[in-house]
Amino acid sequence: MTAPVMAITYREAGVDIDAGDELVERIKPLARATRIPEVFDDIGGFAGLCHVPPDIEEPLLVSGTDGVGTKLKVAFATGHHGTVGQDLVAMCVNDIVTCGARPLFFLDYFGCGRLELGVAEAVIKGIADGCKLAGCALIGGETAELPGMYANGEYDLAGFAVGVVSKKKLLGPRRVKVGDRILGVASTGLHSNGYSLARRVFEQEMGLGYDSVVPELGKTVGEALLVPTKIYARQVQSLLGAVGPGLHALCHVTGGGLPGNLPRVLPKATRARIHLPEIPALFQVIAKGGPVEEAEMLRTFNMGIGLVVVTDEKDADTARRTLTAQGAVVHDLGVIVRDDESPEPTVELI
Amino acid sequence: MTAPVMAITYREAGVDIDAGDELVERIKPLARATRIPEVFDDIGGFAGLCHVPPDIEEPLLVSGTDGVGTKLKVAFATGHHGTVGQDLVAMCVNDIVTCGARPLFFLDYFGCGRLELGVAEAVIKGIADGCKLAGCALIGGETAELPGMYANGEYDLAGFAVGVVSKKKLLGPRRVKVGDRILGVASTGLHSNGYSLARRVFEQEMGLGYDSVVPELGKTVGEALLVPTKIYARQVQSLLGAVGPGLHALCHVTGGGLPGNLPRVLPKATRARIHLPEIPALFQVIAKGGPVEEAEMLRTFNMGIGLVVVTDEKDADTARRTLTAQGAVVHDLGVIVRDDESPEPTVELI
Repeated sequence: MTAPVMAITYREAGVDIDAGDELVERIKPLARATRIPEVFDDIGGFAGLCHVPPDIEEPLLVSGTDGVGTKLKVAFATGHHGTVGQDLVAMCVNDIVTCGARPLFFLDYFGCGRLELGVAEAVIKGIADGCKLAGCALIGGETAELPGMYANGEYDLAGFAVGVVSKKKLLGPRRVKVGDRILGVASTGLHSNGYSLARRVFEQEMGLGYDSVVPELGKTVGEALLVPTKIYARQVQSLLGAVGPGLHALCHVTGGGLPGNLPRVLPKATRARIHLPEIPALFQVIAKGGPVEEAEMLRTFNMGIGLVVVTDEKDADTARRTLTAQGAVVHDLGVIVRDDESPEPTVELI
Repeated sequence: MTAPVMAITYREAGVDIDAGDELVERIKPLARATRIPEVFDDIGGFAGLCHVPPDIEEPLLVSGTDGVGTKLKVAFATGHHGTVGQDLVAMCVNDIVTCGARPLFFLDYFGCGRLELGVAEAVIKGIADGCKLAGCALIGGETAELPGMYANGEYDLAGFAVGVVSKKKLLGPRRVKVGDRILGVASTGLHSNGYSLARRVFEQEMGLGYDSVVPELGKTVGEALLVPTKIYARQVQSLLGAVGPGLHALCHVTGGGLPGNLPRVLPKATRARIHLPEIPALFQVIAKGGPVEEAEMLRTFNMGIGLVVVTDEKDADTARRTLTAQGAVVHDLGVIVRDDESPEPTVELI
């Protein structure tokens, strides 16, 4: 076929395969640095490969997917793309560890309108950093250049995490009983939930820019909003080892807050009676700046508690000491009480 | 805390938690219909749970992630959202089955600016349909409402599939040898690659709308471009059963086309010598309508072959018969030949 003079190409239609290939080359060493012994990378090919750890009796695969939400908008506005990758890993991995799972591997999806190599590399470097913190391997990903689907300089992220747990060691509502203690592990900030509301408050209600310093916080709005989501995977692994069967349930506090998430790990006819410690300044600034009502704050934000730990009464001290030794700030939140009145488990804030 | 009169809410900031909850309720029966025996859904909670099938020696987990690309733009323009979900499943599952894996489960990410319940439900129904075709369970997903990130009525999708294969049965380059036969299984159309170029050709170069009938195709542009990607999972399972160790490699023809994908499953010092059957009319219309040069067509589109099968010479007939019995249209494409000259495996079109 003779080349027509005015022939058009995929690149002219907005997709630069060469830039995609270049990105793949840049990602390779980042991904390689997250390798764990279970990864089987003998071949290239179309898929990521990982052994099932052979020492786990009746292994259950535990999987979760999540995104970072409009926290990404803060990265776009400030040009700081290095930490949203950790947020992505955190949101997925913190979900799967609540089952008692050990994270094995992670895959990411990066969608954009026009591939900017530096930005994509920074984001994926953050994902690899997050995978290292979580102890899981980055074994696959997709970078999609979708002309006309995203505004210039914007992108969306989705993450997928898989872990493994022995069926006998699965955490959850069936283990929880009346009298169990409830501990709260501090969050590092908003984590990755409620950003549409938080941004609305700072930008529109308070009229602040991302570089405006908030005196109560001693940092700029951008800095406060970009603090990476804490990855609890290693703390949970320590907890599983130290507490064993006395560890009953874990709850990742995400969208819906404590009232929306904690009931998911409680059995029927129970109530979590909780006293929240002092609400961190960032949440107070948002509540006042909106203003946002307390109930709305509670069902939108984590309010300072990123992970809830439910243990047997006799194991609460061990759990607290183990987490504290891992650098966590731990609060005694309360206790599981009997509640025959309510059809579904509830949270009572006292 | 007394409710301030002008307090703002998450909903006012653009996120409707109630719509999200309603969607979750609508999705539940769709997901339940994809259940396979390995799914362990004894508890709700934060993650999807799936047994590792116990009868697989040295199980390797095989995972892949992908999106649908700007094929989504055709769904937006035509209002037909029911099949892009099958595309999403196909793009992920066809990748993992190339290792010889049996698909186990799937998770999806749906990102949008404003959650339209009917649209999201149609998309996720399509995902569930795709999972049924692939024989895998839809065990998780995330629907993210990101105000200001997507244009009205638009969304992006990411999918994530996990399967399992015995290490001894892993397909790939190490099995392929000189003299192996190459079969091609017909695609159903563009599948989900090259849409930015195809849309540019139809919309701008040919000046057609999605409801314009293309005489060579006997259907409208929209109909031709929305044909769902073929899911090869069940055909591959039949092939694995019928051919056994004589099945050496499988190649999913995606972005990069045959020249970009087939070398990924070939060993060094080999060349795939291939004769393509007649190019289907849709690709001819695009090549002429651009015009788009032949080489650019080849590295952008599947050109009528969605899956390439490499078998031992003695097993080629069994493979062809097995696939044909499954309803596939199969072409003899060629043979693997020795090539000591080229450092990397290549594809030669004759």
